[in-house]
Amino acid sequence: MKLGIIGLGLIGGTIAKSLNSKHIVSAYDISKDTLTYALENKIIHQAYDNISNFLKDNDVIYLCLYPEMIIDFFKSNKSIIKNDTLFIEISGIKTNLIEKLEKLEKLEIKNFDIVFTHPIAGRELVGVKNSDKNIFFNGNYAIIENKKNKQNNIDLTYKLAKEMGFKNISIISAQLHDELLAYTSQLTHIISLSLVNSYKENVNLSHFTGDSYRDLTRIANINIDLWMDLFVNNKDFLLSKITDFQNHIEQFKSAISCNDKVKLAELMNQAKNLHNKFLEESRNES
Amino acid sequence: MKLGIIGLGLIGGTIAKSLNSKHIVSAYDISKDTLTYALENKIIHQAYDNISNFLKDNDVIYLCLYPEMIIDFFKSNKSIIKNDTLFIEISGIKTNLIEKLEKLEKLEIKNFDIVFTHPIAGRELVGVKNSDKNIFFNGNYAIIENKKNKQNNIDLTYKLAKEMGFKNISIISAQLHDELLAYTSQLTHIISLSLVNSYKENVNLSHFTGDSYRDLTRIANINIDLWMDLFVNNKDFLLSKITDFQNHIEQFKSAISCNDKVKLAELMNQAKNLHNKFLEESRNES
Repeated sequence: MKLGIIGLGLIGGTIAKSLNSKHIVSAYDISKDTLTYALENKIIHQAYDNISNFLKDNDVIYLCLYPEMIIDFFKSNKSIIKNDTLFIEISGIKTNLIEKLEKLEKLEIKNFDIVFTHPIAGRELVGVKNSDKNIFFNGNYAIIENKKNKQNNIDLTYKLAKEMGFKNISIISAQLHDELLAYTSQLTHIISLSLVNSYKENVNLSHFTGDSYRDLTRIANINIDLWMDLFVNNKDFLLSKITDFQNHIEQFKSAISCNDKVKLAELMNQAKNLHNKFLEESRNES
Repeated sequence: MKLGIIGLGLIGGTIAKSLNSKHIVSAYDISKDTLTYALENKIIHQAYDNISNFLKDNDVIYLCLYPEMIIDFFKSNKSIIKNDTLFIEISGIKTNLIEKLEKLEKLEIKNFDIVFTHPIAGRELVGVKNSDKNIFFNGNYAIIENKKNKQNNIDLTYKLAKEMGFKNISIISAQLHDELLAYTSQLTHIISLSLVNSYKENVNLSHFTGDSYRDLTRIANINIDLWMDLFVNNKDFLLSKITDFQNHIEQFKSAISCNDKVKLAELMNQAKNLHNKFLEESRNES
């Protein structure tokens, strides 16, 4: 099968590395250096700097662009997309993106399919040079329910996700995806950034940290353009999750402030039990 | 040198494993199973279930008890502590503990020394069975400035910390220690617990998480007794750090709520720069 990748960054590069032994993989990217590097390192079989030729030659295309760029991509290129092309989209937010694309669709009849998916995996690094098959191995993948998709395209997307090494592949609604990811992904990044920003002493911090601080701040080395896009385009769910989290922080603060050990023990027990349930679920899956 | 350890849990056990090739290490613990396990696994050379004999036989004693137990320990045993004993205390809070011990000291003249220290290292696990030399290797260690300590005892404490594999050994005031650790350690635990507690969907969460959620929640598997003690006994600094963090979370929330991309970029850039400075400092130390 001829697979194309648009946008050969960390995730696009990881898709290429995960599938290039079973399929002919080509890529389109605006950076010539990226394409040269990917060819030289045998990450892809073929490189394109012309989008028309790329779209003509590929039947299944992973769309590895930030959400807002995806809209621009279809605005610019919808007239040159050939019939029956399957796009597999991979960004971290869905409801807003699908809504915006549906508005676009009304403008013109199209004869291609977009399956919205999310490899729930990443690194605090960018670019094809940091791509790595292990990022996907045994990971989670979400495919968004969408009645417009052809069943064989859903099936192919699922099969390719298995080939990339994903362990748990869930088919869920765009809404539920965005609500869950607002919690597991966008909120965690807001927390990490806020933790880093609240440091104010003038002391070499690295002498007074253990694993907990290092773990909680790893993701503060953030890809600003990507996360700006995700935060803004999942605003409603994210604001609601931030509020829930603030309420729980406030419960701890109030219990500590009142020396209320009973309440503190209750809150810690609740977290310990929920976390053990999560670990148990994770273990049962692997 | 004859080294004793009171309280053979995760940290006591790790001290034993880190020093037992160079010194004769004995331990006192209220659990006979713990002592039997430690002897059978050659973690210690000698076990005591009688505190009088233990105190008589050891000159340098690591006091590996939770802060509130330390007060009780000195209340109960001060009359049987022999002259010139050096206690090296290792808990995660200092100001409150030292104050309480000073009040005790007024009751009776003592002829022993307590050096207050903090191996800034741990695991989300408890007990001697989980102790591991790697927990300390290349880690951070703090020794509290205290004019009452004899210089040779400070020097010995420092030398033993080096022998245990610690990389950065800082000598700082109790106040600064408690302020920094409220931020790097206690606040991070409050955040992790609050994040776990704010989950409310009824979905198998483990299918929708990536590394960020796993990293931020690892420490939610908390040792409740220990952290209760730390939270309550470092209340003032901790409440102040929670407030700072809440203010920074609120800045993100407000920027997202107003679609203020300029402010969002500014906040993300600030975190990215602070975090890179921290990583740079960490690298320079290793």
